This record gives sequence, structure tokens and C-alpha cells, in this order.
Amino acid sequence: VGFTRLTPLSEAIAWIDRAVAGWVEVERLSLREARGRVLARDVSAEKNAPPFDRALADGYAVEACSTLGASTYNPLTFRLGDSGGAIFPQASAVALGSPLPANADAVVPLDHVEKDEAGNTFEIIDPIAAGANVERAGAAYSRGTLLLRAGLRLGPGHMALLAEAGIGAVEVVRSPRVQLVVTGKDLVTVGDELPTGAVFDADTPMLRGLVERDGGTVEICMTDRNSAHAVRTAIAARNTDLVIVIGGSGLGANDAIVVEALGRAARPGDDGLSIHGVALRPGLSSGIGRVAGMPLFLLPGLPVACLWAYEMLVGRAVRRLSGRSPELPYPQREFVALRKIVSNIGFVEVWPVRGVADTDCIEPILAAAPDSAGGLFSTVAEAAGFVLIPEASEGIPSGTRTLVYLYDAHRPDSV
Amino acid sequence: VGFTRLTPLSEAIAWIDRAVAGWVEVERLSLREARGRVLARDVSAEKNAPPFDRALADGYAVEACSTLGASTYNPLTFRLGDSGGAIFPQASAVALGSPLPANADAVVPLDHVEKDEAGNTFEIIDPIAAGANVERAGAAYSRGTLLLRAGLRLGPGHMALLAEAGIGAVEVVRSPRVQLVVTGKDLVTVGDELPTGAVFDADTPMLRGLVERDGGTVEICMTDRNSAHAVRTAIAARNTDLVIVIGGSGLGANDAIVVEALGRAARPGDDGLSIHGVALRPGLSSGIGRVAGMPLFLLPGLPVACLWAYEMLVGRAVRRLSGRSPELPYPQREFVALRKIVSNIGFVEVWPVRGVADTDCIEPILAAAPDSAGGLFSTVAEAAGFVLIPEASEGIPSGTRTLVYLYDAHRPDSV
Repeated sequence: VGFTRLTPLSEAIAWIDRAVAGWVEVERLSLREARGRVLARDVSAEKNAPPFDRALADGYAVEACSTLGASTYNPLTFRLGDSGGAIFPQASAVALGSPLPANADAVVPLDHVEKDEAGNTFEIIDPIAAGANVERAGAAYSRGTLLLRAGLRLGPGHMALLAEAGIGAVEVVRSPRVQLVVTGKDLVTVGDELPTGAVFDADTPMLRGLVERDGGTVEICMTDRNSAHAVRTAIAARNTDLVIVIGGSGLGANDAIVVEALGRAARPGDDGLSIHGVALRPGLSSGIGRVAGMPLFLLPGLPVACLWAYEMLVGRAVRRLSGRSPELPYPQREFVALRKIVSNIGFVEVWPVRGVADTDCIEPILAAAPDSAGGLFSTVAEAAGFVLIPEASEGIPSGTRTLVYLYDAHRPDSV
Repeated sequence: VGFTRLTPLSEAIAWIDRAVAGWVEVERLSLREARGRVLARDVSAEKNAPPFDRALADGYAVEACSTLGASTYNPLTFRLGDSGGAIFPQASAVALGSPLPANADAVVPLDHVEKDEAGNTFEIIDPIAAGANVERAGAAYSRGTLLLRAGLRLGPGHMALLAEAGIGAVEVVRSPRVQLVVTGKDLVTVGDELPTGAVFDADTPMLRGLVERDGGTVEICMTDRNSAHAVRTAIAARNTDLVIVIGGSGLGANDAIVVEALGRAARPGDDGLSIHGVALRPGLSSGIGRVAGMPLFLLPGLPVACLWAYEMLVGRAVRRLSGRSPELPYPQREFVALRKIVSNIGFVEVWPVRGVADTDCIEPILAAAPDSAGGLFSTVAEAAGFVLIPEASEGIPSGTRTLVYLYDAHRPDSV
């Protein structure tokens, strides 16, 4: 027994990239609903921006030619408002962003003028060039200009650009629906009484958070691990875009039931579990396939293994379905390994690390492999981030520069 | 006229850090509600983890001493289940994570044994050490161990740790309530008809997104810029933690009304607008103060100026109130400036930049100052990120390494 062959992580990732080529559906949402989503279509301007010539300073709109000859020896006086054939050239008070009055072609900023007491006239001592402090209609962009490209994730600044352009709704990638099929016995929801031998269900709240982080929505279904029929029914029950089955991925007696169920759920075109056993630790017993027409991931129930199986495999599929970058959503930075990290050849290993205060160094938190005792606590509470050690590597010698995925770019030190 | 003194950005930031020293209130939330929030109190373990000795492999639980002497020349046979005084030592099938049966102290992994046809017995050819593939009760942590420290922002992994530990609710920092007082005339909500001379309100949807990104919730109040009374009433109307007044920050005629209103709203202990005019471009006309007992920011209405005034000033206050790191929430990386960026001495300037494909270089997008024509479009649509040029600097010479704030760590290239 044992996994007869472990699929290299790179091969598992290639499988996912083939099976989940991109998003499936597009929906049209208002600006408010669309924030955080990924644009499904290019957005082009429907009109010019700004829509009119506008002032780029608080000041006085003038005809530039009327300022010719102004100097300290020859201050020119302007009259505000309608001069009605008066001897002074005319000017109008304008605010930054407001439309330029007809005939005006420049704005004299407030602090370049000397105003009289009554505020009806002002003097200038410098001529101003035509176009100064003025933004012409269409200067930013004109009708048909590409504003935002498909694939962009919409942030607050994009809301401003779209609103300014009068675009109140956009087509975005629909959020993928992810079904969590939680198999297992002796699993108790936190808050309930814990019988001896039972454990709290840590995977469901974690996976909900991970899927939502990656742009998906979650539907949860608890089912009995001992019944292949119950597992099969749960998988086929809902119309979702991806299924995650939790628990039963291993080689124990109960596990066989889940694996068998996944085989039987197959429809024409399905290939069941194409991969079972990935050269990844934690997360070795993960399975990947296509069941009931959907991509399906079988994850180990042990929380630290479930976490890394999601991060290294499932998350990539969810992010692809959401239209996001498939890469791990963590900031990366190079650090120096202060102590050696020993890794087994033949697996990609995830090692939690902590920063060493006031240095550019990190050190491993665990002495043993990360899926052993205390792995979850170390990974999520004691670590500032993690390193990925390639299959062919025996680890990271001390003193070597290595790429670290950080949980929080602002807090590389450990807690 | 003109701002008689511009407050240096560093001074404005110091003012904010003094005025908003940290969060005000704590609330107790269930795990599901608490995700994304900041822990207000340390969380310690209430019991041991794991709660019992458990198997760390799928396999057979045995007494290690019964395996002594096993070898290829001397395979030892074990009987599964209750041996009832049989000649073979006893073993029990266990799954990864399940409790170890009484008396057993080691787990022989499935792939280390040779099972008989019927599956009632198996042979081993290697002795196993006591404790092998076993995690002892309390090995991860014990009652009283500090699990998560106050100040941590709760992510999906923390959900797993808390759930596993049986902790169903935590005390987190309450989301700050931010009131947007939108002053202005000729502002139209996107979707409505646009009269000549009017513009769409880009600031409200943008600020909603920015405040929510930084952990706050938004209440919106539209008011008449021409009435000091209306502005005053709007500010005092709601019980919020911070007020943002948009529009009327400049030196135009209408602006004076808003600035006056902020003065009159003062209560004992208020200091009105302590700062008006910050050495920041875009965003120069921003004001900061304490009005009606709350920190108040007066932001320019021009969207590109409003954006940077929020990012460089208000966002810091909102993040502090949320318990988050006050720093700008963008990944940073060093790039080489391919072309010179010219900046004015005396201001911190924000310059949008684009990446140059297949190089480690960036270049500025605009030729003129970033608050001039097309600033918003360039900043949010054409840029991959931005650089901040210090007050005392005339800009960045070409060929110089410079720190870039990236909008998306995965897509440093421009659109």
C-alpha cells in the first residue's frame, strides 16, 4: 500500500491550469457592487474628459491677450464680472475644476493677483500665456479611448475614473461558487460540546476564509464519511463551479470510501481522481480530478495539511475562476537563512519561518517536518511567512539568500 | 491670498499620529464575523492541543516494545483488533489524526507493513521506536499558551487555529465609522442625467472604496456647499469616529464658506482646522483638524487631488482607528528610473509610473505635475504604481534606483 506514485507539484499545477483555463461567466454590476471584482471586458470612454474646458486653479479666468504688457512698472487692472463696456478688461472668478467662461483661455491663480479692497477689481504684474491653468475639453481622454483593460481587478481609484466617465455599471467575472463537502466523523463545530476523542472542525472556517479571499463564494455540506452514497449525493447536489471534499484523502480504511465515491460520481467526460498523492508536504494525500462535470479537489482533513493543500493547489483554481492572478497572494522578499532548513528530497516542502528582529534574516520555526506535531500552531501563529523548498533540494544552507512569502509586508518580524 | 504657509507632509502625519493614537472600542465577534479584523486582546489556549495522543500517519498503533527484534530474517506478525490472548501481539488500525488506543505508543505506517490476504494480520521487518508517528497530548500547545497576539489581523489560517482550540468568539477592534460630507454643486451621481457644466461625483464611490479597504464603514451625507449652516449640521449630525468633508478646501469664493463652517462647528477642546494647506501634490489644499469632537479632514473635490489627499493623510487615520498598520497598503519594490522625473522643491509629489516591459525599469507617465490635465486617468488607468518624491528633492535622475509603490505585486507592467 502507500501512494504508488506521487505526482510532482509542477505536474499537478499544470493539470489545474489545463482544467481551469479561465472564468466561465460574466455579470453586469453597478460600480458599488463591482469593487474588488475583475473586469471581464475592456471599458472605453463614452465621452470626452473633461467634458468642457476647465480651470486647473482657483483664480480668475481671462483672455490671455489682455494680459500682454503687464509688469511691475505697468500693472494691469481687471474688472470682475460683466464689465459692460468699461475701460478695464474683463475677468471671472473660477474655482479649480469649474468650467471656463466663454472667451477666457487662461486662469490667473489667486495668489498671482493683488485685489482691491472692494474685491471688484484686481491687478496683475505678469502676462499669462494662453492655456495656462486650463485643461481643455477631451485633454484627459476622448470618446473611444480605452480606459480600463479586461483582467484588471477594480480598486477604489478605478471607481473614481469610471464614475467621472459616467460609466455606472461594468461587466465583471462572476464569483466562482465553491462547494465544501466536509466528510468526517467526530467533527464538532466550534461552540458545541466536545465529546472525548472528537475534535473541533477547523477546516470549514479556514476554507471559507481562503475561498472568499480568492474571490469565491462558499456553500457548505456536511456529510458522513462512511457512506459512499452520501458523499456522492453531496457532490452532485448543487450547481457549483468547483468542489472541495475534505477528509478521506488518506489511505486509512475510512478513506477508501471517499475515494471510491469520487470514482462512482463520474459522468461521461469525467476522469475521476486523475491525481491522488502529490509530492507536497504538508498536503501529500491530496487528490485532484473532474467529477460530476466539475473540477474536484480532495483535501486531507488534518488542518495544517488542508491549509497547504488549499494554498498550493485549490487556491490557484479558485483565483483562475475569479479572473485573478493564479500566483500565491503573498508579498515576497529575499531574506538570509540564519539557520539551516533541512528538507526531504522528492517533495516540495512548506516551512514556516520567523524573522529575526533587526536583521535581514529568517529562521525555521520547526525542527521536524512541517506536517508533524504543532504544525498548524507554528504555521499560523508563530510564523511571519514561509519558504517553499523545491523537490530536488535537500534544504537551505545557513547563510543563503532565499525567497520568503510574507503574511504581512509590514510586519516581517515574528509575533 | 494663497496659502500663507504649507504644512510639511511629515508634520501633517505627526499631527494625525498624535490625534489618532489608536482604536477606541472593542467588540466581541464570532469567528466568521471576525475575519479580516484586528485582535484587540491576546488570545491564549484554554486547553491542550492535541487534546489526546494522536496518530500522525495512517497505519497501525502498536506497543513499541513488541516490535523489538523484527528484521527481514525475523518478521514479526501482529494481529489486528482484540487478540483475546492470542499468540500474536495486538495492533489497531488508526487514521492520521485519530486518537491512539490505550497501551499503544507508536504507529507503524501502512506502507511499512505486509498485510495477509484476509487483512487480519500483518508482518513488520523493522522495530519501531516509542513515540514514532505519534503526537502527544499538549505537544502543540497547552492550556495558557499565548496563541495569537493583540494587533494581529485575522486571516483564514487564524480561523483554523482558533476553531481547533475551541475558541468560537474573539475580541476585535470595532470598525471605525467614517462620515463623508460631500459638499458641492453641479455634482451628479453616476447614472443620472448630466446637465451642461455639471460633473459626475467621482469622489464618493472612490472614498467609500478607500475607507472600506482600510477597515472602516462609510456614512454619506450630501450637502450644499453654499450654506455654512448646512455643512455644520451635516458634520454634527451623526455619531462617527472621523469626518471627511469633500470639496471647498481651496481658496475660491465658495470654499470660504466650508472653511468658515468648520471653524464654527468647534466645541470646547476642538481646535478647528489646525492645518490648511499641505506641501503635497496632488492634494495641496487639504485641511486637518478636530471639529465637533472628531478628527476631521477637508479634502479637495478634484478627484485626483482627493485620491492622494486620502492616501497620504486620511487613510493613515482610518487604518490607525482600525488597528492596522498605518503605512500605505501597497507592496513596494525598487526599480530603476528609465527617464528623469522632475519634481518641484517644497512639495512631496506623487508621480504615477509605468513599468517598462521585460526590464527592471519604470518611467513617469506624465510630463507635467500630476495634478494637471489627465491626472486621474494616468494615475489609476495607465500607471502600475507610483513614486513619492520628497520635499527637498528636485526629482529622480534617470538611471537612479527608486522605491515604487505597486498597485498589484503580480503585474508590475503597465496596462
